[in-house]
Amino acid sequence: MPDATTPRPLPSVLLFSVVPVASWFIVRPLITPVPPLPALHVSVGISMLTLLSAIYLVPALGPTFVKANLKGRDLLKTYNTPIPESLGLVCACIYILSLIIFIPFAFSSISLSGSHTQYTVREGIIINEFPHYQLSVYLSSILSILVATMLGFLDDVFDIRWRHKLPIPIIASIPLLMVYYAERGNTNIVVPIPLRPVFGALLNLVGPLYYLYMSMLSTFCTNSINILAGINGSETSQAVVIAFSVVLNDLLYLPWPSDFRIPVYLLGSRSEVEIGGIWSAGMAYGSRELVERHLFSLYFMLPLLGVCLGFLYHNWYPARAFPGDTLCYLTGMAFAVVGIQAHFSKTLLLFFLPQIFNFVLSCPQLFGLVPCPRHRVPRFDSDTNLLYPSKALFMKPPSGLSTFVLRIFEALRLTELTTHPQTGVILEATNLTILNFLLVKLGPMNEKRLTQTLIGIQIGGSVLAFTVRYGLAGLVFDGDRR
Amino acid sequence: MPDATTPRPLPSVLLFSVVPVASWFIVRPLITPVPPLPALHVSVGISMLTLLSAIYLVPALGPTFVKANLKGRDLLKTYNTPIPESLGLVCACIYILSLIIFIPFAFSSISLSGSHTQYTVREGIIINEFPHYQLSVYLSSILSILVATMLGFLDDVFDIRWRHKLPIPIIASIPLLMVYYAERGNTNIVVPIPLRPVFGALLNLVGPLYYLYMSMLSTFCTNSINILAGINGSETSQAVVIAFSVVLNDLLYLPWPSDFRIPVYLLGSRSEVEIGGIWSAGMAYGSRELVERHLFSLYFMLPLLGVCLGFLYHNWYPARAFPGDTLCYLTGMAFAVVGIQAHFSKTLLLFFLPQIFNFVLSCPQLFGLVPCPRHRVPRFDSDTNLLYPSKALFMKPPSGLSTFVLRIFEALRLTELTTHPQTGVILEATNLTILNFLLVKLGPMNEKRLTQTLIGIQIGGSVLAFTVRYGLAGLVFDGDRR
Repeated sequence: MPDATTPRPLPSVLLFSVVPVASWFIVRPLITPVPPLPALHVSVGISMLTLLSAIYLVPALGPTFVKANLKGRDLLKTYNTPIPESLGLVCACIYILSLIIFIPFAFSSISLSGSHTQYTVREGIIINEFPHYQLSVYLSSILSILVATMLGFLDDVFDIRWRHKLPIPIIASIPLLMVYYAERGNTNIVVPIPLRPVFGALLNLVGPLYYLYMSMLSTFCTNSINILAGINGSETSQAVVIAFSVVLNDLLYLPWPSDFRIPVYLLGSRSEVEIGGIWSAGMAYGSRELVERHLFSLYFMLPLLGVCLGFLYHNWYPARAFPGDTLCYLTGMAFAVVGIQAHFSKTLLLFFLPQIFNFVLSCPQLFGLVPCPRHRVPRFDSDTNLLYPSKALFMKPPSGLSTFVLRIFEALRLTELTTHPQTGVILEATNLTILNFLLVKLGPMNEKRLTQTLIGIQIGGSVLAFTVRYGLAGLVFDGDRR
Repeated sequence: MPDATTPRPLPSVLLFSVVPVASWFIVRPLITPVPPLPALHVSVGISMLTLLSAIYLVPALGPTFVKANLKGRDLLKTYNTPIPESLGLVCACIYILSLIIFIPFAFSSISLSGSHTQYTVREGIIINEFPHYQLSVYLSSILSILVATMLGFLDDVFDIRWRHKLPIPIIASIPLLMVYYAERGNTNIVVPIPLRPVFGALLNLVGPLYYLYMSMLSTFCTNSINILAGINGSETSQAVVIAFSVVLNDLLYLPWPSDFRIPVYLLGSRSEVEIGGIWSAGMAYGSRELVERHLFSLYFMLPLLGVCLGFLYHNWYPARAFPGDTLCYLTGMAFAVVGIQAHFSKTLLLFFLPQIFNFVLSCPQLFGLVPCPRHRVPRFDSDTNLLYPSKALFMKPPSGLSTFVLRIFEALRLTELTTHPQTGVILEATNLTILNFLLVKLGPMNEKRLTQTLIGIQIGGSVLAFTVRYGLAGLVFDGDRR
């Protein structure tokens, strides 16, 4: 199959039709009448260009990566051709450059005359201030993402050990935490109703605790994407679905020019949700702060969606390029940044349901109860071209605790065990990842099908997340939906 | 010579005595009475720790770099052992981490109650504001340095071509320029007296021109250090001398607790320079803004000095570690950042005199008048252990312009030409770098001696720079010494 590793052809006509559309979005705010949310127009335009850049630069730079020894064999294929690895770096460069180029648009006089300017009223005097605070937050966010990218790439080049890897996202989140600390930020989190008798309505996680929560969030977001990897397109498609979910969630809070209603009571809520009306509608219910938070999130998520979609074109089965750890760290950190800075970390975690499931499932292997081989990807059978669950082999009989946990997992049909016919001692267990779980549950399938199933689950998780967030959140939290 | 490539021994006792001193500097601002400039104390302490980290981490991580194929042969040695390359990356990580960790100290309430807080008087109301603007500037500076590091490391890994390399510092300076633009910064530069009839006293380089000047400065600072390379310790020692000069210059502007005078008229100035007195003395002459600018510069230069000194210990002849392009981009960008953000770009350029000389000397080779081989380092003679000027060979007879330029350079004794005995056509010319120039001028010498000569010239350049800046500047600029 020599054609499987040549770069995918680029549909030039289709792609170049994107350029005028993107240019229109970028130029539009300069034409009077200035549209509401001018910076968002620019962001949409830039995001289209990031998609285009990713689609063109990834195959163009592939050979350079192979030459620099950043290459890998595809373990689940019959051919042996080296595939360029770590191309998440190209995505990262495009993404970060687009975020930097966006700064003057977000903070120019045109944008500021609209949504961003803060009119501080002090003793009756209205002062029109430049949003320095927002700029600091924006810059520290880019800084965190860049540190994560850098460390992800170092991981690819130096192949850092698992134990040394874990603190990487903590280091990357330092700029965020530092700015939070320097600004003496609001470290309250809203406590769910059942726990209020214990903690009170607003838990002020003073000092270390809240910072711990934030760095744990960064650690979780980056590593959970990284461990749900191994088949073509898995990391990238997760990022695409999560980014798309965050964008959808953000859009709910924007001041739409027209007024319309969504009958959320169908989803189990007690009331309808009104969306629309300038500054006075959307889920923000007139809160300028909420609108700005979600605009901030959009400015980071739209170009991320752009690069990831562009990269997915080349990373799709059979993959012509691998993302490397760089893409996992980049996307994970970007999600953590918007979750923290735009204050919707709980909603964000809901979009990570498949990752949480995969993490919990992996725990026995991550914490040493079950042997953890170097690669836990499914086993490829070249005769049938199908994937089968891969297995972890017990070199010595498992301890009582390991047996207990594995028996429970087996009862829940999360793993398949091979036991000694006489003694009943566990000899092998399928590796504890969501991919192997799917193969146990649904039977062997080919790689493309498995990726599609994974995407389906991720989308299903997001639908569930929206239901929980806007349908059921009323049961757990009261009206203050932030 | 097997011992030449084993890591240099670390004088543990001396080094660990640094830890308590550094800790004292970091803790001191927490003890009442709070010293003036508390954040500077912390910066000094952190810088000592960066020195220590560099000295310990560089040899510890060397084998990892060799394993990741980041290694090189020392061209000017008899042995062939691979030396770890690109260890500037370790310096960069330590440096950037120290800058990030410093944020809460620079912007904490203790520091702010002292020097940093701005009391804005508006209509008679005094408002105590958090210095968001300074935070943005600080963050964008780290961002620029990090982008430069990243691109420098990519250069090391992918070996980017010279033409593609040139825009790297421009990309890295984008965050600086963007923040400048977003803040609608002051784009005036003070015009030298002789040019004032043409331009007026303050040249407002509106828009593109000033941004061009700033990105050219970044490009010059990074590339000029990069092309003055090739012998053990050359890049690092340049960075050390320049950083030290910038620190000295900054110290002149600080509010010293005691009052003393320097008789600068010895250097040709028209008056004495008073240094001292809290907030009312130093070269800042009571300008809080000038003091803050030079504090900003110190916060970036002190840890840089720390890592570079630590690295020099291992990079010194015979080198156990090479800096790679990463260190050149890191240090160059750090200098450009302080020059731009603390508004002393002209003074900064004076500290680059040897680099400017080297750049002008290199121009005929850089712009294709004279053939430019891949490496222009001096030629090593293993019998005598001495370095001789290396030569560029003309494959075809040089053009009239090339001959003209080379004849002038020969007359100035900047190069040595080999001509055809009959026709007089130039056959060879010594490579046009300051290193080959020194070998032409002073005769062959060993590598260590050449590095020492280079350091001597760099120090001489800085002495000259201080003389011009504080002695002769009065002739070119009037009293407004910024």
